[in-house]
Amino acid sequence: MKLDVLFSPVLIDELFFTGKTTVVIDILRASTTIVFALANGAKEIVPVGTVEFAVKVSGGMFGGQTLLGGERNTKKIEGFALGNSPSEYTSETVGGKIIVFYSTNGSRAIVKAKYSDNLFICSFNNIKALAKHLNKLNEDVIILCSGNNNFFCLEDSVCAGMLVNELITGKKINELTDASISAMTLFKAFGKDIYKMLSETEHGQLLIKNGYGEDLKVCSQLNNMDVIPFYSGNAIKVLK
Amino acid sequence: MKLDVLFSPVLIDELFFTGKTTVVIDILRASTTIVFALANGAKEIVPVGTVEFAVKVSGGMFGGQTLLGGERNTKKIEGFALGNSPSEYTSETVGGKIIVFYSTNGSRAIVKAKYSDNLFICSFNNIKALAKHLNKLNEDVIILCSGNNNFFCLEDSVCAGMLVNELITGKKINELTDASISAMTLFKAFGKDIYKMLSETEHGQLLIKNGYGEDLKVCSQLNNMDVIPFYSGNAIKVLK
Repeated sequence: MKLDVLFSPVLIDELFFTGKTTVVIDILRASTTIVFALANGAKEIVPVGTVEFAVKVSGGMFGGQTLLGGERNTKKIEGFALGNSPSEYTSETVGGKIIVFYSTNGSRAIVKAKYSDNLFICSFNNIKALAKHLNKLNEDVIILCSGNNNFFCLEDSVCAGMLVNELITGKKINELTDASISAMTLFKAFGKDIYKMLSETEHGQLLIKNGYGEDLKVCSQLNNMDVIPFYSGNAIKVLK
Repeated sequence: MKLDVLFSPVLIDELFFTGKTTVVIDILRASTTIVFALANGAKEIVPVGTVEFAVKVSGGMFGGQTLLGGERNTKKIEGFALGNSPSEYTSETVGGKIIVFYSTNGSRAIVKAKYSDNLFICSFNNIKALAKHLNKLNEDVIILCSGNNNFFCLEDSVCAGMLVNELITGKKINELTDASISAMTLFKAFGKDIYKMLSETEHGQLLIKNGYGEDLKVCSQLNNMDVIPFYSGNAIKVLK
């Protein structure tokens, strides 16, 4: 099992993912929000690469069943029903609904990885459940950090390192790359207090400044959910 | 003084560097080779972005004074006088000469950063001398890791982290980014035995496999040189 980590989606193009098993991480906040939405009964999430496409796609869907969600530069987009705070995605709001979702980093990373054979979404909330499933699959894994406006970000890298660590624990043979070894090193240095780490990162600081400090608590919860979001047919659903 | 690290040149475009103070690192082996060549009396190094351009540029220069150097996929290029092993760049070979230089990662990263206000080259060999100069300059610094075919590589990141560590030691105020904090964390984890680290990285393993294992010893020497390569007028010279 070869485990590789990409610290930014800009490093590769879409075709890179053909035939791969990929995990997308955007801790602050898209991958956390997606895990929450599905855990709270959303029917599916349709990730899109542009705001314009989100509006277009949702227009062709059944009004009452579809919600627009996401953010641009941390803030809710005008005309969207939901922003990108996981706590907005309650069962009352999203239960049974299709969410068309755009975010600056996460949804675009998912769209970029759409040609993967298997495409999963990971946050701190569901990391153990996902690792268990990946170990059963026993395929090479590409862990794609969504990053921060194409740049490296610490929180996605620490989560990637934690996932690598989960995947290698108790196994004898694994092939690690410079990037997966480095992610694991960052997890070991910063993974002991996830909330503290999140609140000190560049993106965490920006969220606090913009009034989304409470989101960091939700995003730092570890293994409190067992849903595995799986991308198939242009939408993310719970893996059954 | 804000210190940022870019783990791959692909993250940004050329104009990003306008007005910046930039340090380019390509430990295996371009930045080490450049430091060696200048320490051994090369007049200047002309970094180029393609092999074709290297041949074209050198054709217009005085034959006896100009040497073509560099590699493609670790190996010396046909028709080039020199490969990319630092130990080839002895004073007998390069003294007084202009070297037109191409390499898969390093020379292309330097060319990409050419619009920088100040552009320096760093290897483990000259890190203390360069840090001393940067501390005198007292400008924000972008540390650009050349990476490995656009991907993250550990050796450049550890050197970047060592440079960050040198620059902040003894200072009260510094602004660090997620990337510079992470590079420093990698330096602390892997910087104690540089030769061992190099020999275990992906690119180090490839060099050993291709018969360049001896280069790793040269590339791991720490602070044995005090030249500061500085890019100005399309060429890299020793900063006086």
